[in-house]
Amino acid sequence: MFTKVLVANRGEIAVQIIRALREMGIASVAIYSEADAQSQFVKLADEAVCVGPGPATASYLNMQAIISVATLTGCQAIHPGYGFLSENAAFAKLCAECQVKFIGPDATLIAKMGDKAQARKTMAQLGVPVIPGSQQILSQVVDAQRAATKLGYPVMLKAAAGGGGKGIRVVTQAADLAAAFEQAQQEAQASYEDDRLYLEKVITPAKHIEIQVLADEYGHVVYLPERDCSLQRHHQKVIEESPCASFSADERRQLGTLVAEATTKLHYTNTGTFEFLMGPDHQCYFLEMNTRLQVEHTVTEMVTGLELIKMQIRIAAGEPLAVTQAEIQIKGCAVEARFNAEDPAKDFQPQPGRITQLHYPLGTLGVRIDAGVVVGDQISPFYDSMLAKIIVLQPQRSAALVKLRRCLQELTITGIQTNQAFLADLLATTKVQDATYTTAFIEQEFLKRWSPNASISTAQ
Amino acid sequence: MFTKVLVANRGEIAVQIIRALREMGIASVAIYSEADAQSQFVKLADEAVCVGPGPATASYLNMQAIISVATLTGCQAIHPGYGFLSENAAFAKLCAECQVKFIGPDATLIAKMGDKAQARKTMAQLGVPVIPGSQQILSQVVDAQRAATKLGYPVMLKAAAGGGGKGIRVVTQAADLAAAFEQAQQEAQASYEDDRLYLEKVITPAKHIEIQVLADEYGHVVYLPERDCSLQRHHQKVIEESPCASFSADERRQLGTLVAEATTKLHYTNTGTFEFLMGPDHQCYFLEMNTRLQVEHTVTEMVTGLELIKMQIRIAAGEPLAVTQAEIQIKGCAVEARFNAEDPAKDFQPQPGRITQLHYPLGTLGVRIDAGVVVGDQISPFYDSMLAKIIVLQPQRSAALVKLRRCLQELTITGIQTNQAFLADLLATTKVQDATYTTAFIEQEFLKRWSPNASISTAQ
Repeated sequence: MFTKVLVANRGEIAVQIIRALREMGIASVAIYSEADAQSQFVKLADEAVCVGPGPATASYLNMQAIISVATLTGCQAIHPGYGFLSENAAFAKLCAECQVKFIGPDATLIAKMGDKAQARKTMAQLGVPVIPGSQQILSQVVDAQRAATKLGYPVMLKAAAGGGGKGIRVVTQAADLAAAFEQAQQEAQASYEDDRLYLEKVITPAKHIEIQVLADEYGHVVYLPERDCSLQRHHQKVIEESPCASFSADERRQLGTLVAEATTKLHYTNTGTFEFLMGPDHQCYFLEMNTRLQVEHTVTEMVTGLELIKMQIRIAAGEPLAVTQAEIQIKGCAVEARFNAEDPAKDFQPQPGRITQLHYPLGTLGVRIDAGVVVGDQISPFYDSMLAKIIVLQPQRSAALVKLRRCLQELTITGIQTNQAFLADLLATTKVQDATYTTAFIEQEFLKRWSPNASISTAQ
Repeated sequence: MFTKVLVANRGEIAVQIIRALREMGIASVAIYSEADAQSQFVKLADEAVCVGPGPATASYLNMQAIISVATLTGCQAIHPGYGFLSENAAFAKLCAECQVKFIGPDATLIAKMGDKAQARKTMAQLGVPVIPGSQQILSQVVDAQRAATKLGYPVMLKAAAGGGGKGIRVVTQAADLAAAFEQAQQEAQASYEDDRLYLEKVITPAKHIEIQVLADEYGHVVYLPERDCSLQRHHQKVIEESPCASFSADERRQLGTLVAEATTKLHYTNTGTFEFLMGPDHQCYFLEMNTRLQVEHTVTEMVTGLELIKMQIRIAAGEPLAVTQAEIQIKGCAVEARFNAEDPAKDFQPQPGRITQLHYPLGTLGVRIDAGVVVGDQISPFYDSMLAKIIVLQPQRSAALVKLRRCLQELTITGIQTNQAFLADLLATTKVQDATYTTAFIEQEFLKRWSPNASISTAQ
């Protein structure tokens, strides 16, 4: 087992990784930006090294600086968390070259799945159903027009290099395609320095279903219970749950077996998540694969009782998987809300500032709060706006929703605006209560009638 | 179901009861003393009424004031929590007379079990093994001498009205009995206004094992997995765990069946706990029955997944038990540490004062922190010194100990002295690690060699 590991991330996930390492008896080295010098994860780590100024490109994306810290401090491995360098094949390759174990899959597989068009092609070859779409990159508008006509509108333009929701345009009629193509191309270029686009048929209404796998270096693969992450705004997940309320045990086994087989055929190791769109007929279409831990892995931890960060570290250290498929059980229903520093009244603009008061609703059975910030912390404008995840587990889904909403109502924070009331009100809607929500629900229904000023959630 | 319930307690347990009520859709009314006006539970309740000044006798023990608040605010029931009026038969009787449901057993059973000598006699009649001892109250020293000689030394003098550790003396030789008798009698009189004593043989070395039961008003009874609460100082529990590491499934079933049968025969309802001393031969002897929720019910919640406060409320409202004995499973190992405002360097003196900084180690799978205080709170000298309970659940006991110790080391508090380092160091001892500790361990072994100044726990 490793004796020292570098944590190449910040905020709540850096805190969780440091805790996992400490409980495993492994020393932790945090890297941080100048903006994060006073952060919790820096205080919590055994060692901490500043790698650059606030902007991520100068610090958390500074591959050379990070790998230097790892070698100079004697780390045998690097945990990348999510975001930043977690799906960067060049970084994984650099780690391998420097004899530092990257806690994740092999660089070639990160690259293969990171190219979303190539990932679709690979999955189709492995027998995983993909959304009907263009079989290749569309270099010209005319190619896109031809493909769209063949598939039938509505269609979706997507960036081949994408993943963060940039470079995506839904086109409902042929007349709008040319303009959307140009916009998506520009956005993709600006976000990923890669303007390649492809096109997919729009599955609508749809649920976003995903299945996480764990795979060791000896060919053992297990799939975990599916997550329903359909509650999204601007392609960013807002509330996640596991299992999906409308998924049958048979559907779970079938899709799970399919992704486990694909994982085996890919010789994929560590953890990864297969994302699907599920149409009204429950047909699931592969969207993309995330070759890293996801934000919402915590609902899976709650519903299975497995500590996934520790399992990632053990796999990376060459240990065989300690759990079999038959041992993985669903212990109830877990629901997670992402508590963000953003102002719903101002189109969810991020809210940098200082937290002057903060009381988390900690306590009672089945409540878990993974937070990266404490009272007095300065929320930096440089990074994403998530403050904490509030996750609940209950035997019944209805009880989980009640408990999560009670937690959200009890939470107290001053100094910055947050999405607290938005989340509490969202949980109270009929479509969330009866689990019939789809990916369109928040933007096309809920936000149109929700007013942050008339929020019912803050009234007791 | 009730629509409004009064919470006749304070601190963390009041917070937990208010949350349970809220999740059940029941309004809560808190009562509080002048010293607690700014407390969390007061802010959290739907309504809150001050019932008197700081000293408990003037507020939390002020039966008339509390019952008046219940009737004036339209409460149908009162949850007494633990301590204060929770085992006061007169209060339970007063509730019944005022047509307010006391959430607990019938007043006559509280009285019967509250008289510790009568409780032993009752249990012996019901077939529950009791510690060999005097069959009746010892009014004179000479009676005690005769009984002690018959039983053989060491013996323990105990107050018939006791429960809080007062009026107890261990006597190892005949020459010390007279003085100990007088001291115990005076202490019992001062603490309980009742100087009656009885005598028991000392079972040593012993573990403190207890089994909690749930019983509805239709004769359904279940027993819950046993707790090992042997880690005590001055007869106060410090760290509790469930299940007991050295208890076999057969022993659990046998003792559980025995107490469930006794519960049935007593026509006992709601929840209660049978406390036992277990000798080296695993023979268990009845100590006393607590006719209320206990502080450490939380380890049982963690290990079973049952929400016991909600179950108490449902039973009191006349609902049948929703769980059968066969459905109660042990989901791993739960361990709890009581985080107290007390100074181990000054013989654990309570530490009133203002909390200037407080960061709980919230987050990660299997961690639960039930707290009654937040940063800025003033710790009153009037009440017990518990600030929070930190409870962990893990599949293996060894992992639970590691996680709990990591949480204790991570906890940050300034402004008052606490037992944080004492707890962390206690967890690291061999006897706690291998679960061979007995009730004598802390006072007779650990405290003799432990130095708060040389604490290893604060060094990372």
